[in-house]
Amino acid sequence: MRDELDLRSFIRVIADFPRSGVQFRDITPLLRDPEAYSSALKAMTAFVKDLRPDCIGAIEARGFLFAAPIATALSLPLVPIRKEGKLPAARASVDYALEYGTGQLEVHSDSFVTGARVAIVDDLTATGGTAYAAASLIESLGGEVVGLAFLIELAGLGGRERLHGRNVYALMTLP
Amino acid sequence: MRDELDLRSFIRVIADFPRSGVQFRDITPLLRDPEAYSSALKAMTAFVKDLRPDCIGAIEARGFLFAAPIATALSLPLVPIRKEGKLPAARASVDYALEYGTGQLEVHSDSFVTGARVAIVDDLTATGGTAYAAASLIESLGGEVVGLAFLIELAGLGGRERLHGRNVYALMTLP
Repeated sequence: MRDELDLRSFIRVIADFPRSGVQFRDITPLLRDPEAYSSALKAMTAFVKDLRPDCIGAIEARGFLFAAPIATALSLPLVPIRKEGKLPAARASVDYALEYGTGQLEVHSDSFVTGARVAIVDDLTATGGTAYAAASLIESLGGEVVGLAFLIELAGLGGRERLHGRNVYALMTLP
Repeated sequence: MRDELDLRSFIRVIADFPRSGVQFRDITPLLRDPEAYSSALKAMTAFVKDLRPDCIGAIEARGFLFAAPIATALSLPLVPIRKEGKLPAARASVDYALEYGTGQLEVHSDSFVTGARVAIVDDLTATGGTAYAAASLIESLGGEVVGLAFLIELAGLGGRERLHGRNVYALMTLP
């Protein structure tokens, strides 16, 4: 099993994607190394398990790659939190600002019962905007966000401050 | 463990989504039932394992929800096959027609070595257009598509004919 430092070597930096000035963190090298992927999932799953959640809030699309194995490993319901226009049934939505651009997140209104303990899972948090929006969305439906798990936290973009007071885990913090 | 017939009860039909006349198959009830989700994954994983693939080609976005647990269960590399503009590094792309609208699929050019045995995983096939495009994309990079696994196949839309000659598995066939 590799340690955390080693896992960082599976994250590739792509300059100027999706727009000039953005240093994109590409997780595909990690995904194609089964040992690295499994090691990352193991650490994230341990954090999520300790939250004693009732379900996993899975943020589209890369978040699905971590949320799905975590939910199945812990035998927990998976609730997709999707971009605008993807979910077909009655839903709640929230607007949010991204590091680059803006978006809207949606969740089915029947995703969980009032008071359900929800753990949010995504691949990366930068400004915290997506995660904050997802948490607000879940809380607007009566869910309780008991924690948020990320593979990567980008330091210095305000994410940690924006999610202040919440139980946040990131396997690795990158500059 | 529920049987296949029972798993169908976790697929909800939403009329006229995303446009009038389309009967959308909503898999979110299955995702939020850990036993149903796990049972579906077990069957799909067994098919994929028998293909002896070198890696899993995971079609964005709902395909990620099945490909990721299958890849991790079998300790196989996961290669994301994504919509246009999502993958940051050098990539190959292919145009395709959807049941509703058109799209473009992309894959990183360094995703696998020539001759790699690739199993494609997605949640649903209707016309077979997305899966056919994904297979063409993989083959254009020198990969060998050894099979395709779906949760759902919609009958009567030509998918099976379009993927003729390929090793195709669908856990359930719906009208």
